[in-house]
Amino acid sequence: MKHSLLAAAAALTLTAPSAAQQAPAPAAEIPSPGEIAAAAPAADWIEIPASDLLVMDLALDAKGKPRRVVIQLMPVPFSQGWIGNIRKLAAAHWWDGTSVNRVQDNYVAQWGDATEKKALPEGLAVVPESAYETAIANPAIATNPIRIDPQSPYGIDAYSRSNFFYEGWAVAYDQIWDTLIQDEKGKSIPSNLTQSAWPIHCYGMVGVGRNLSPDTGSGAELYTVIGHAPRHLDRNIALVGRVISGIEYLSSLPRGTGALGFYESEAERVPIASIRIATDLPPADQPKFEYLSTESDSFAKYADARANRRDPFFIKPAGGADICNIPVPVRAAK
Amino acid sequence: MKHSLLAAAAALTLTAPSAAQQAPAPAAEIPSPGEIAAAAPAADWIEIPASDLLVMDLALDAKGKPRRVVIQLMPVPFSQGWIGNIRKLAAAHWWDGTSVNRVQDNYVAQWGDATEKKALPEGLAVVPESAYETAIANPAIATNPIRIDPQSPYGIDAYSRSNFFYEGWAVAYDQIWDTLIQDEKGKSIPSNLTQSAWPIHCYGMVGVGRNLSPDTGSGAELYTVIGHAPRHLDRNIALVGRVISGIEYLSSLPRGTGALGFYESEAERVPIASIRIATDLPPADQPKFEYLSTESDSFAKYADARANRRDPFFIKPAGGADICNIPVPVRAAK
Repeated sequence: MKHSLLAAAAALTLTAPSAAQQAPAPAAEIPSPGEIAAAAPAADWIEIPASDLLVMDLALDAKGKPRRVVIQLMPVPFSQGWIGNIRKLAAAHWWDGTSVNRVQDNYVAQWGDATEKKALPEGLAVVPESAYETAIANPAIATNPIRIDPQSPYGIDAYSRSNFFYEGWAVAYDQIWDTLIQDEKGKSIPSNLTQSAWPIHCYGMVGVGRNLSPDTGSGAELYTVIGHAPRHLDRNIALVGRVISGIEYLSSLPRGTGALGFYESEAERVPIASIRIATDLPPADQPKFEYLSTESDSFAKYADARANRRDPFFIKPAGGADICNIPVPVRAAK
Repeated sequence: MKHSLLAAAAALTLTAPSAAQQAPAPAAEIPSPGEIAAAAPAADWIEIPASDLLVMDLALDAKGKPRRVVIQLMPVPFSQGWIGNIRKLAAAHWWDGTSVNRVQDNYVAQWGDATEKKALPEGLAVVPESAYETAIANPAIATNPIRIDPQSPYGIDAYSRSNFFYEGWAVAYDQIWDTLIQDEKGKSIPSNLTQSAWPIHCYGMVGVGRNLSPDTGSGAELYTVIGHAPRHLDRNIALVGRVISGIEYLSSLPRGTGALGFYESEAERVPIASIRIATDLPPADQPKFEYLSTESDSFAKYADARANRRDPFFIKPAGGADICNIPVPVRAAK
């Protein structure tokens, strides 16, 4: 171990482009996924509308430092009525003074009203369970056809027939032939195809806490994934967005010692100063982010590199990747 | 949201058996995976030898509380020469006074000698890269044949041909036919089958930091996974065990702000008081743990339930599971 600390640091992971920037790269060096994304042309980056950014400011930390968590809300068609509720709750300043109440290791951090007595704003939608999935016949998808590539490096999935990226989001897909009919030769053939898709519970995804079915949650109680993707929650809970900045302020909180990681005392809860849609913040305080278009060639190269690590640290490229190991690149915009 | 806090807690996840214990279950209620494990007969639980437990005591926390992390070292055949090195390092008290130096969000916490100047004990093995995989012809496996069930709920894997559990550990498998020969009809058929298996980088797994290939690391620099399974590291870094208790003392540490999550100042590093094999601790201080035999019927039921959640919270069982979403149940033993 005669190498410098930074050399050792670069050696262990190389997921961050900064590592390779510390020393001149050999001429033949193959770029890491992060380097591929960083080198993508400006046209491949898409600015996230400020109206889709949910900005959560936690109380200052023990040293007086701000803790801002920025969530990108999902656009249609995979997000459903919950998004409207979240906009109403933010507009009503409903979360101000509530708290992070639960942090369960390798699972979720969850926030909302610990007393469960705070009245909700009027007019929140009650969203049906059917909205956990989106029928492929949905016009919003039909006009922007889903491209399913069975040769894609990330199509193999224990939780769905296939998965893919759609306008910046990881989505799973399934199809059901729900009747058998007889063809002219008397052979049974499947009929009545139903195709549907749904967002995936990857690290950092934000979902809507709920009680037992048929409750689907209002959106007032939210959680984010801080561990291995809990894919069994897919199609069982609503997903509404993802944390794109500041997740460390949630993922590094002390784990709750109560059942399911709930904090057992008021003192442990982390107060939420405010939650706002970015457009309701003063212009100078509005965060700006952009994501790498998942429909771009740059993203295809990035995804391939995530599935086949050929940068210098790696010996055996995997030849495939869990879709949750291909996080969509997001960065601050100017 | 008129339900009590605990009702809401139970509703969101139900991964913990404690949730269902809070209220009498309806007669027809289907047990959760945790309940299935808890109900397994004593004979299905296997005590982990104290000689396989690596006990890391971090410095007391800010409130003076102990922080003990217990790691189960992997047995042969999937662990290799690194385990012997780790035993030597612990026997030499080598880690005492070193520190946790790196915490990268959704990736790893890493510990060792931040100065990289501390002399290593003599006689550490230099382990070859070939040891990242284990040939299936290995006698230790041949005497305890690997059972690969293509119908298993967790066989589908983007990173390998299949995966399975072997004596308490999640393992991936691949095969290569590396030549084509002509059969008697002149048809080309594959020959020279090589089968190999390797441990999987799931949450909590412990691995050996290394520099660039051909370095394979001594075992002095260790990390544990604190995020989504970084499976691209499989077969690229040595895995030597898993955290079975106290991972929250690592996963909830502040994230490092340097490249790759390294702490930038001495003050941020978390001192390690001692690391010992449990048999070198006073008897009263030796932790005792047991795991649910992955060869038991109880485990088969547990794994099926993880892949097909039918307990009351769930609407749509997934019908499959990522093997890293089937953590082997481990509990304190009496």
